[in-house]
Amino acid sequence: MAHDYEQMWKDLGLDLAAHDALLQVLGKGYEDIFLSQSDRPQGMDYFNFVMSEVHGLRIKELMEEKKAGRKVIGSYCVFVPEEIVRATDSTLVGLCAGADFATEEVERLLPRNTCSLIKSAFGFKLGKVCPYVESSDMIVGENTCDGKKKSYEILDTLVPNLYVMDLPQMKSNEGHALLKGEYFRFKEAIEGLTGVTIDATRLRKGIEIVNNKRKAIHRLSELRRADPVPIFGLDALLINQVSFYDDPIRFTESVNKICDELEVRVREGKGGCPQGTPRILLSGCPMVVPNWKLPWIIEQSGAVIVGEESCVGERGIRNLTDDSGAALDELMEAIVDRYFKIDCAVFTPNPDRLEHVKQMYADYRGNGVIHYGLQFCQPYQIESLPVEKVLEESGIPTLRVDTDYSMEDVEQIKTRVEAFVERIGMSTCSACHFSLS
Amino acid sequence: MAHDYEQMWKDLGLDLAAHDALLQVLGKGYEDIFLSQSDRPQGMDYFNFVMSEVHGLRIKELMEEKKAGRKVIGSYCVFVPEEIVRATDSTLVGLCAGADFATEEVERLLPRNTCSLIKSAFGFKLGKVCPYVESSDMIVGENTCDGKKKSYEILDTLVPNLYVMDLPQMKSNEGHALLKGEYFRFKEAIEGLTGVTIDATRLRKGIEIVNNKRKAIHRLSELRRADPVPIFGLDALLINQVSFYDDPIRFTESVNKICDELEVRVREGKGGCPQGTPRILLSGCPMVVPNWKLPWIIEQSGAVIVGEESCVGERGIRNLTDDSGAALDELMEAIVDRYFKIDCAVFTPNPDRLEHVKQMYADYRGNGVIHYGLQFCQPYQIESLPVEKVLEESGIPTLRVDTDYSMEDVEQIKTRVEAFVERIGMSTCSACHFSLS
Repeated sequence: MAHDYEQMWKDLGLDLAAHDALLQVLGKGYEDIFLSQSDRPQGMDYFNFVMSEVHGLRIKELMEEKKAGRKVIGSYCVFVPEEIVRATDSTLVGLCAGADFATEEVERLLPRNTCSLIKSAFGFKLGKVCPYVESSDMIVGENTCDGKKKSYEILDTLVPNLYVMDLPQMKSNEGHALLKGEYFRFKEAIEGLTGVTIDATRLRKGIEIVNNKRKAIHRLSELRRADPVPIFGLDALLINQVSFYDDPIRFTESVNKICDELEVRVREGKGGCPQGTPRILLSGCPMVVPNWKLPWIIEQSGAVIVGEESCVGERGIRNLTDDSGAALDELMEAIVDRYFKIDCAVFTPNPDRLEHVKQMYADYRGNGVIHYGLQFCQPYQIESLPVEKVLEESGIPTLRVDTDYSMEDVEQIKTRVEAFVERIGMSTCSACHFSLS
Repeated sequence: MAHDYEQMWKDLGLDLAAHDALLQVLGKGYEDIFLSQSDRPQGMDYFNFVMSEVHGLRIKELMEEKKAGRKVIGSYCVFVPEEIVRATDSTLVGLCAGADFATEEVERLLPRNTCSLIKSAFGFKLGKVCPYVESSDMIVGENTCDGKKKSYEILDTLVPNLYVMDLPQMKSNEGHALLKGEYFRFKEAIEGLTGVTIDATRLRKGIEIVNNKRKAIHRLSELRRADPVPIFGLDALLINQVSFYDDPIRFTESVNKICDELEVRVREGKGGCPQGTPRILLSGCPMVVPNWKLPWIIEQSGAVIVGEESCVGERGIRNLTDDSGAALDELMEAIVDRYFKIDCAVFTPNPDRLEHVKQMYADYRGNGVIHYGLQFCQPYQIESLPVEKVLEESGIPTLRVDTDYSMEDVEQIKTRVEAFVERIGMSTCSACHFSLS
């Protein structure tokens, strides 16, 4: 695809050589990890295509939207309300942050002990290899963790259009008021950027589009309750990841289409793994493309992932936004209420998250929980210890894995995950033992 | 002193053997680092005495206050408004957090990559060696950094009386409102604990006591502008550290007394170091007793510390609280205004801090800045890179030192500090080369 898009990438200011190298690694990784899986649903073809064109056709589409006067908003967090963006016919995209890049340059700007996700966001920017960040008319940062909050001050010197959203730390009345104030401020900023005034009709339309996307993923999640599970965890994670890049309406249709196929599988008792394959609930930090290391290890170890308690997963899409309000303010309030429920570990205390993990474990008929902590992500790493304690005390086998984006610890993690899968004492699934070629 | 206080320590639930061992190490460290200094002001005798009785006589005093119906409030942060505590005749004390203790036990509750300060607070509690935490009728946590915010959730399971104060992350109107709400909530909590209703007279008295303490330290700071500097940085740091433990009125008198002596020194052109000794401004994370590693290395390297841009230092005591308001609400508002100015790195953005560093550098006639970052303290570590960049660009030599409470990196830091002192190219002070016996 390179020659078709070369001019576009050049115009965006990408470093073509570095970008080519990145796409090659990405393509090879995708082939090894995803395409080598056995018995994938046909509906994954669409997502394979999206991934193969994630820096190509999708960027071309965004360029065409921009030519038509629409705006592209880049984000690093599920607290940025897509409904408001969509109400102005703008597009919200997740920005690249799933692989190490330009590490040496990054570590001149950020401490080494910063989490991989943040370092990666800087690396993609500094290395000039993320067409999304270069296409964005506005980049939205948010005061979630210390790492992001403080590094946005530095990112602000690297990009011309950073907008920072404050966020509460407690689920108090004051916290709710703060979020509300910030969402109204964000609405004004988006109106200012786009020249579009958001009225109730527009906002309701935005809510509908985003709710439909969530509903489609909820439908997919429900289907993963079946045993055998009709889709591998890696593929389900990929669909969640693609939700941050793809056109939301087309994405929703594609998810519903694969769900139709999976329903047939469930009725016929079919799946990539046989019945009785150990079922893992993955919980913790978000996994952004191409951060597939841990799920790949897990599904190579004879287990299958049945749910992601993560921002790229159920935490990001759990609740719908109530669209029943007639007035603009009611709809805005509904948006605030919806996002205020997000059980991110930056909140203190954060008891809802533990309840959600337990609920998902029960709903998806898990046999064990693997907690994924990004090294130096203090909110999730600190929270993981009590989470593990309470889960184990509730009789839920739990393994804590703290790691980064490097491949150095793959063998070590594999050993721990295999022992864990053995511990949860179920027959393992030979079909899951696909391997890197 | 052990036999005098043994029963008291036992009653507080301390682990006597572990506590004895701690006191021995502390005593030896103090002797080596402080008592070995040449030509110290006589006024330091008082602070030597306070330190020798920091777990003894001072705790006995607190016990007597408690017997008389007064309360002891423990804190880990300069955002806890002492004026409000003092308005009820209660005493605010800083809680132990300056040395590694019970590390193995701590790392069962907190991730290894948590900063030493937080780990230490847990270690002192788990190891049962902090009489302050055991004497406290209320322990106040605050949502500053992620590390503290999330670890208070765990501390809450270890102590019966944790009160958590929310804090803003931005210096916005909403942030100011949040702090105000929290300070009113804190006032109510303190009133509830003590049974004392805070009126304007009481609060004004509280403000006066705390302001006087600050004024005395300001006076001490001013005297450090002189060349030769009349007091070593280690001693000045110790005075700042003692301010968190000592009775505030007695402390204020003692600081003013040593200032009288230092004024004579300044007039006579005397000091521990000769004129022209390289003058270092220390900037960054707080240093709690007995965290004297870096200042000790610096002053062993032939330089002298002339100011601490730190919570245990100028950041903690910079501004006075306006006591001119007649009504209670005006005084409360003045307290909010005063604390809202604190330029802690948890705020984003935090431009005031950089201005303060530059101002202190000029005021105290610095020759270089050493930035002290606690390993895994994300707010200060991330902020330290742009701080270093801007200072260097302004022609201010700057050295970043990231470290923890271990002694493993002493030689490495010493090499770097010595090279830095050499770089700032001044004659070094042989009198500062006191060494560990």
